Amino acid sequence: MTITEIPGGVTAPAGFRAAGLHCGIKASGKPDLALLVSDVPATAAAVFTTNMAQAAPVLVSQEHLAASGGRALAVVTNSGCANACTGPQGMTDAREMTVLTAQGLGCDPRDVLVASTGVIGVNLKMPALRSGIPTAVGALSTDGGAAAADAIMTTDPFPKSAAVEIVLPGGRVRVGGMTKGSGMIEPRMATMLGYLTTDAAIDQTRLRRVLVDACRYTFNAITVDGEPSTNDCVFALANGASGVVIDDATESALFEAFRAVAKTLALGIVRGGEGATKLVAITASGALTEADAWTAARAIANSLLVKTAIHGADPNWGRLIAAAGRSGAQFALGGARVRIGDLIMFEDGRPFDERAPQAAAYLGGTDLDIEVDLGAGGTHRATVWTCDLSKMYVQINAEYRT
Amino acid sequence: MTITEIPGGVTAPAGFRAAGLHCGIKASGKPDLALLVSDVPATAAAVFTTNMAQAAPVLVSQEHLAASGGRALAVVTNSGCANACTGPQGMTDAREMTVLTAQGLGCDPRDVLVASTGVIGVNLKMPALRSGIPTAVGALSTDGGAAAADAIMTTDPFPKSAAVEIVLPGGRVRVGGMTKGSGMIEPRMATMLGYLTTDAAIDQTRLRRVLVDACRYTFNAITVDGEPSTNDCVFALANGASGVVIDDATESALFEAFRAVAKTLALGIVRGGEGATKLVAITASGALTEADAWTAARAIANSLLVKTAIHGADPNWGRLIAAAGRSGAQFALGGARVRIGDLIMFEDGRPFDERAPQAAAYLGGTDLDIEVDLGAGGTHRATVWTCDLSKMYVQINAEYRT
Repeated sequence: MTITEIPGGVTAPAGFRAAGLHCGIKASGKPDLALLVSDVPATAAAVFTTNMAQAAPVLVSQEHLAASGGRALAVVTNSGCANACTGPQGMTDAREMTVLTAQGLGCDPRDVLVASTGVIGVNLKMPALRSGIPTAVGALSTDGGAAAADAIMTTDPFPKSAAVEIVLPGGRVRVGGMTKGSGMIEPRMATMLGYLTTDAAIDQTRLRRVLVDACRYTFNAITVDGEPSTNDCVFALANGASGVVIDDATESALFEAFRAVAKTLALGIVRGGEGATKLVAITASGALTEADAWTAARAIANSLLVKTAIHGADPNWGRLIAAAGRSGAQFALGGARVRIGDLIMFEDGRPFDERAPQAAAYLGGTDLDIEVDLGAGGTHRATVWTCDLSKMYVQINAEYRT
Repeated sequence: MTITEIPGGVTAPAGFRAAGLHCGIKASGKPDLALLVSDVPATAAAVFTTNMAQAAPVLVSQEHLAASGGRALAVVTNSGCANACTGPQGMTDAREMTVLTAQGLGCDPRDVLVASTGVIGVNLKMPALRSGIPTAVGALSTDGGAAAADAIMTTDPFPKSAAVEIVLPGGRVRVGGMTKGSGMIEPRMATMLGYLTTDAAIDQTRLRRVLVDACRYTFNAITVDGEPSTNDCVFALANGASGVVIDDATESALFEAFRAVAKTLALGIVRGGEGATKLVAITASGALTEADAWTAARAIANSLLVKTAIHGADPNWGRLIAAAGRSGAQFALGGARVRIGDLIMFEDGRPFDERAPQAAAYLGGTDLDIEVDLGAGGTHRATVWTCDLSKMYVQINAEYRT
């Protein structure tokens, strides 16, 4: 199957419109309100943060998806305020965002999903949203994907959109998407949001399966600082506008298209991580179980010592071994192997430290590939994408709120 | 019971001598060889890193403790090289360190424990140790504790020694100790080492119990970067020179003395953590189980977002909630509470963000106390000591090895 990249982001699939504008939440005057709308009620699925301190918009979107039986017409999103840890007022405000959107679109509030990203413990500026949401409804456009991707950003250094087209037996299907990081984090509080659209017709069970599977190897396989947030969520909307119905025979093709869009977006988050200068693929192999492979890859990818060494292009491969050894995954030093690019740095219990200068040169690049074989004798492997840890990360996150 | 602080470090208890000198491992010319010796064979216990990539000296010390049945006359330590990931040659070298020490002292090599700290994947400079260890034996002194504490340092900004005296029914007992961090880390590779000495007479089962219990609330309750190393270990030597025999009635008093010394040393590691400017006590309370309390306290104490906010004196208490919520411990937002110093920032689902300026002023200090009640309705609590994360940490750990 050929997956062709196309422009347009979330509005690349037929039957989707979007808008993004400044309504008054961000003091900077930058865009802070995004609206994504399907022309007809779309099959909807979402995955939400596993953080037990879920934000109000996460709870309201879960309620609405349950009430509608997996259907949605719109997703309304504000940036600049996470509406998290805001108590009953926060729930009231999140619900009002869906009501305001439903009034503008002439639909049931339960057909509207809601997301927020920004500082937590602060209430939403509802007057700004009360005037902004009707304006956003009026600004909806079939080429509004870029404006929407701009309006969901917090400290992201660049907007992140992607879209692809695949040709199935029944016709062409498009999948679009947008996301924001920045590296799963906002300078005050982490919030990752993702949006995937498709004009395929697909039932909710299939859509949910495709979304969950696509996230597993993309959004769930990245890390900037190991901090899953109170607001993380990824939405998928399928409106059937292409006329192509997804069945058993074509579900895997749609999954690949979802995965392609989600991977582009997810790697964009890592590249745009706070203070990041390098994108690093960390693979753990030779694991006894798939869970062990993920555990080890995540431990390495989140190790401060690994991330700072990579930032300094320091070929300090011992830190990779140490992180794998403490990860909790089965690990055997005698069978372990460390590969940096094409260079084997440790194998059969023996260091090849004389290759350090070559490894340092490789680590000077911006797209890096590192593998640690756990030596456990298994065949499972997992790849996690991470970034380096720089002084800029500390600066961004140490700044006063006020 | 009165615990009186006294000078002298590991040589404060009767019957211990120590030495520290430069033998040639560190290019800087700084001390890199420490020797700690008991006049008579001491009861010995040790706790070792849980990292599955254990260094050669860790393996050899475990062998020797098992072979001797929990007895030791000496601990020989080099800094500047961790002798980890060094294969069979590393094992040979670690064993030779114990043989060289045993020859100098006229004892069985199995009565010598060994530790190394420094860069990993590089072999020891054995010629330096072959001349240095006999010199160290000749330099042993009852006031050598300070020199030994100097010689085990890597990037530690200051040496860390402590000692106390307690009076038991049978007489006075002293407990001494020394440790090195720096923040569980060396610029190339993390290694935390701890040494506790006492002139009490105590059987190995009791000594081990006292050591493990003391470590639980001290060495095991600190974190700088969440990176347990390949070389971490804490040794305890009890030589009976005080003539006081520890029994059921006095074991808890000795435990308190061990705990006092270990806590002073452990907090010294955090204060001297790489780039650290603040010591922060993080308490998780209201936990359903003790394990949950530790899990949540560790998650908060290792959160990059928490550590950078504290560095910047940013009263961003939402990050505390978010870290607790994702920790895996049972957590209920409605019952959660956040305390920064004496200021309640969040309670009964309600933020008190208006106290942010006062919280910022408090966080400008260097000794901080923060508590998160998990709201789970339990009574368990745990305290972990951590430090802030600064640009200096990144700089130290991003430097080229070469």
